Amino acid sequence: PDQKAVGQQLREEWSRYNSFPKPSGARDFKEGQTVTVHGFLARKRIKSSKLAFADIQIDNGPAVQITSSFQEPDSPGHAANQALRSIALYSPVSVTGTVARLHFDTQTGQAQSPCVDHENASSRPGSFPEHVFRIDLDLQSIQPLNVFPKDIIVSKGVQFPPSARHLQVRFSDPLRTRLLVRPQIAFRLRQSLNDLAFTEVETPVLFKSTPEGAREFLVPTRRPGLAYALPQSPQQYKQMLMASGIRGYYQFARCFRDEDLRADRQPEFTQLDLEMSFATGEDVMRTVESIISDLAVFLDSDFCVVDEGEETYLAPRKSLKAKNREDSAPGSRYMMPPFPRMSYEEVMTRFGIDKPDLRIPFELHRVDHILPRSFVSMITHLENPIVEGFRFRPSSGEGSEVSMSGFVDELMRTLPPALAQNPDGAPVALVVDSSKPLRGLSPLGFEGAGALESGEAPGFGDLEDGDVVVFQARQDKSFQGGSTALGTFRNLVYQAAVSKGLLPKDRSFKFLWVTNFPMFTPDNETDPGQGGQAGFSATHHPFTAPLTDEDVELLATDPLKARADHYDLVVNGVELGGGSRRIHVARMQEYVMREILKMTDAGVAQFSHLLEALRAGCPPHAGFALGFDRLVAVLTYTDSVRDVIAFPKSMKGEDLTVKSPGRVTKEQLETYHLTTFPGKN
Amino acid sequence: PDQKAVGQQLREEWSRYNSFPKPSGARDFKEGQTVTVHGFLARKRIKSSKLAFADIQIDNGPAVQITSSFQEPDSPGHAANQALRSIALYSPVSVTGTVARLHFDTQTGQAQSPCVDHENASSRPGSFPEHVFRIDLDLQSIQPLNVFPKDIIVSKGVQFPPSARHLQVRFSDPLRTRLLVRPQIAFRLRQSLNDLAFTEVETPVLFKSTPEGAREFLVPTRRPGLAYALPQSPQQYKQMLMASGIRGYYQFARCFRDEDLRADRQPEFTQLDLEMSFATGEDVMRTVESIISDLAVFLDSDFCVVDEGEETYLAPRKSLKAKNREDSAPGSRYMMPPFPRMSYEEVMTRFGIDKPDLRIPFELHRVDHILPRSFVSMITHLENPIVEGFRFRPSSGEGSEVSMSGFVDELMRTLPPALAQNPDGAPVALVVDSSKPLRGLSPLGFEGAGALESGEAPGFGDLEDGDVVVFQARQDKSFQGGSTALGTFRNLVYQAAVSKGLLPKDRSFKFLWVTNFPMFTPDNETDPGQGGQAGFSATHHPFTAPLTDEDVELLATDPLKARADHYDLVVNGVELGGGSRRIHVARMQEYVMREILKMTDAGVAQFSHLLEALRAGCPPHAGFALGFDRLVAVLTYTDSVRDVIAFPKSMKGEDLTVKSPGRVTKEQLETYHLTTFPGKN
Repeated sequence: PDQKAVGQQLREEWSRYNSFPKPSGARDFKEGQTVTVHGFLARKRIKSSKLAFADIQIDNGPAVQITSSFQEPDSPGHAANQALRSIALYSPVSVTGTVARLHFDTQTGQAQSPCVDHENASSRPGSFPEHVFRIDLDLQSIQPLNVFPKDIIVSKGVQFPPSARHLQVRFSDPLRTRLLVRPQIAFRLRQSLNDLAFTEVETPVLFKSTPEGAREFLVPTRRPGLAYALPQSPQQYKQMLMASGIRGYYQFARCFRDEDLRADRQPEFTQLDLEMSFATGEDVMRTVESIISDLAVFLDSDFCVVDEGEETYLAPRKSLKAKNREDSAPGSRYMMPPFPRMSYEEVMTRFGIDKPDLRIPFELHRVDHILPRSFVSMITHLENPIVEGFRFRPSSGEGSEVSMSGFVDELMRTLPPALAQNPDGAPVALVVDSSKPLRGLSPLGFEGAGALESGEAPGFGDLEDGDVVVFQARQDKSFQGGSTALGTFRNLVYQAAVSKGLLPKDRSFKFLWVTNFPMFTPDNETDPGQGGQAGFSATHHPFTAPLTDEDVELLATDPLKARADHYDLVVNGVELGGGSRRIHVARMQEYVMREILKMTDAGVAQFSHLLEALRAGCPPHAGFALGFDRLVAVLTYTDSVRDVIAFPKSMKGEDLTVKSPGRVTKEQLETYHLTTFPGKN
Repeated sequence: PDQKAVGQQLREEWSRYNSFPKPSGARDFKEGQTVTVHGFLARKRIKSSKLAFADIQIDNGPAVQITSSFQEPDSPGHAANQALRSIALYSPVSVTGTVARLHFDTQTGQAQSPCVDHENASSRPGSFPEHVFRIDLDLQSIQPLNVFPKDIIVSKGVQFPPSARHLQVRFSDPLRTRLLVRPQIAFRLRQSLNDLAFTEVETPVLFKSTPEGAREFLVPTRRPGLAYALPQSPQQYKQMLMASGIRGYYQFARCFRDEDLRADRQPEFTQLDLEMSFATGEDVMRTVESIISDLAVFLDSDFCVVDEGEETYLAPRKSLKAKNREDSAPGSRYMMPPFPRMSYEEVMTRFGIDKPDLRIPFELHRVDHILPRSFVSMITHLENPIVEGFRFRPSSGEGSEVSMSGFVDELMRTLPPALAQNPDGAPVALVVDSSKPLRGLSPLGFEGAGALESGEAPGFGDLEDGDVVVFQARQDKSFQGGSTALGTFRNLVYQAAVSKGLLPKDRSFKFLWVTNFPMFTPDNETDPGQGGQAGFSATHHPFTAPLTDEDVELLATDPLKARADHYDLVVNGVELGGGSRRIHVARMQEYVMREILKMTDAGVAQFSHLLEALRAGCPPHAGFALGFDRLVAVLTYTDSVRDVIAFPKSMKGEDLTVKSPGRVTKEQLETYHLTTFPGKN
């Protein structure tokens, strides 16, 4: 009997929220007709004892505004009014009412008259008529379908803790909109690739450990000593598909790296992975340009930039959120192909970074030939340094020397330690100011200032008051790694200038190919590499083809000088992805592994499946991997991939929402014949 | 100098296969014009010393036939002819020649005259003009791009070992075609769901272990004692998305189960996972029917059935492979919605199986009321059994008693042990034969045979010579599990009858919803379940909602009698997927976990993220998961999901191509603070 009472109680609670009327279909939305909609109670405005308004929020649907008024007490209208008042804000509800008005999207600029084609409209429950962005309903009845608790406080721009990701997605327009745009970008890319006769192929996630370059996650099996590994990329499988006769492969592939997470990296990420047979790197670059430009055309026509407080994001043109939208002239936002191409050497020389932001309106120039020794020895302890510099000119027209020197002071005060404590010297920034001796350039001395003013160093001519000139020394040796100190500082100056309004916010996207990377890189301590004995590892992976015949010869004589047929795609200072032509001749691949990288027999044997596939008449092939999270982040104007991933991991690799990773039990480990070290855990 | 020689040698080998002319674009294919195509040398026919033909195979492209002839020795034509002869068959080649003829696909039945619209044709290298299915070229030159080795023997229908999956994909038309059709099916499903305002959301693969039902793979982390788990499905994440305000979610999700693999299961598989908020199970069933019927219309219009020897598969109508195609009248192959619905009770009664094949033209009927005791005690030791049977009538019109008794004899001889040694008795099959006493029904005795003939048992009236009547006893108790012995036998009879030509091959697809499953199932030893102390576990997962108010009450009083709002989609005897309405009220969910399943506090705490999400005003929701590998297998007429997965795992969970799982080293395990048991490994 007690159990029965519990059942009765549960039944009552459940049935209160369990049964609800079906929603209407698009065809039903005629003025004067009774319809039902489902959504969240988003806003209530109580005007008087007999009049109230409320908004119903419907994901991926129009806004619904309801009016609740009544004349007679104890009428159905009265009951509905009372129900509306009593339902907690943000609760899910089912609303039945009379259509008072349909608001049409007149901004789409379409020729047809805005009205509902009821005859052809969908009768599917939950569908809405096209081109309607708002519906006004006179309330007949409202039913809560669950209750939003009072202890959760919602306010504009609220940041919920990461454990409440569901609330953040619900209440942050930028976040939710980015999650909606993401699959549309993926779908458009799929369309383009299908049109190009590519085939999407799913490859295994349960792979095995191979010395490809990064550290892999292991997945123990119940067979003692055997484990799968999660793939760092589908690289080897896709090359096997090329040997299988597939002309074009692509996949939105989940990839995994058990690395110490650097800023804005995720242990699992999605890449648009592709590979083409009978193709060179050139063919792949053209293909990537083609799908990127298809995407740009789509984004330009269907989406607009929304500014909401601090946030900038991309929203569907049709959505209500486009109130604050910036309508650029179509075609102006995205660079169209062919994208410029520069070698690693060139970008390091011109921008001091291997992923330059081409929106930045100033480049690096070498200036040591015009600088007096005294100045050089002031800015560095190096004996024979290279000194480079740039000139930054604010575009605002303001630029009084006061604000500019304040700008420079703040920049120098907040310099990151790597720049401030650089053993080769910190950057030096001078503000051009006619009211000062030597126009503010006195540290350069009379001669140096004169040479600068006279344009003897390119990039510095015609100095104006308010210009900032920057100098930085570095060692006189060939470029290595991703950036120089000055390259890093140049990015900082640009970001600071934009945030201070000294340069306009630039919403355009400037693409760039960076090519001619070195094939091998000396071993370091962070990357496991291929574990060979050569003292260096493949820069990208051991399957990358050499660039030219000359580079093939260098393999045997001076491998660190050999360049690879590798290409990186960069946009606005962000590396979107990289690719390469692969070695398609088995003997060459084995030679690189065995003789150049000096891998052991056991190491080479780990790749036997790939060598077998190449040996079976594999055609020439090349490919690319586009960081999809990164692409969506850049295109929707956020710096963080966490803003485009529904359930991202923290910097420590934790999912703070579901609290993963979790503690494993002794029993779970025993299933896999494993145990933690004695004394551990 | 030695190193230099090696470099020189490598350079020569590499450059032989490295540089090759660009392929032509669709626009270039005009008769008389010189074009270049890339592909595999697929067939050579040497006609004379001066004349040879060859086929070039191009994935996802038209067939290319080349003619090589020459008059003058030492002419370019002579050189090309010699090159063609010398290149090993199946090698990748670049071919340059003059377009002799374009063959147009006249079978598509399109109104427009078949010709190339050169003005609008693509200039993209590697593209081909539309509607051209074969191109004849007069050979000018041919260059090998790698060499196919002599030791790999290719013959029609060859089965390569699993380690050479790349060769199987290259040389098996059915396999390669299925891999090409698979993404087209996925793309069509995406289109339908996008049209229904669903949003594709990617959820984490690095999840955590929760007692949801199946055994999960663990992924150790470098933090001692902590591990991720691979998701058995995105169930919990998608429910959190419903709490996040997403109206419709879907994902082609990779899922993982560390189970002992039964026939044709994979440790990783792809499911089309979807969830709808403000929705009931009814809404989800309608939605699934809608996307399945969109898909059916697409497959009907763009694909046809190909019979090639033993193999039946689906191929694009436009492809050359459609030579042997069976063109059914559009619309006849796929059942259109609404699909029939039957309860678990009904399908077990009528078909003896919870995933009945509706193509089978005979049902089970209860017959114990007309059978003499003597016969019943002959077929079973059970005291008060239920006896069911069916009548199978061959449709061929042949069916002489000789062949039918041979058919039955063979069936009984090859009975699987579970049926032959069934403690409740084996099936009994009699062939109706007028030339024999009591028309072959003498085991039934005069009375039983008479009752059967007179139609006292439904399904047995109007017996004809050649009919087979089957009887099987079972215990008189309520249904449990997936099938009865007679249900299994019915499937065997059907399959044998089709393979012997006694029933026609049925290429149609008959869908069915099975509903009203029990909410809980007594614990067994194979499934971990939810680890509660109740002695039973949730049949599907602990989030499934009860079906009716009555079932809610049964939760507290007699939970094993409660039915769930769960639905399975079945086609042709295959379970395509299942779904359910979920519990969306936090208190109810916690009650089920804590009070009904008797989970521990720690167990319930594992689901705290989900309970929190439900508590935050989560709307009612329901969903579905469609086994995508299985769907593609069924639709392309294969019994095995291995035929629709590029790199499938074996029954032991091994990828025999790349040889995963691999042996882990002590050092790898140490990274994760793990070690194998002393004495193990």
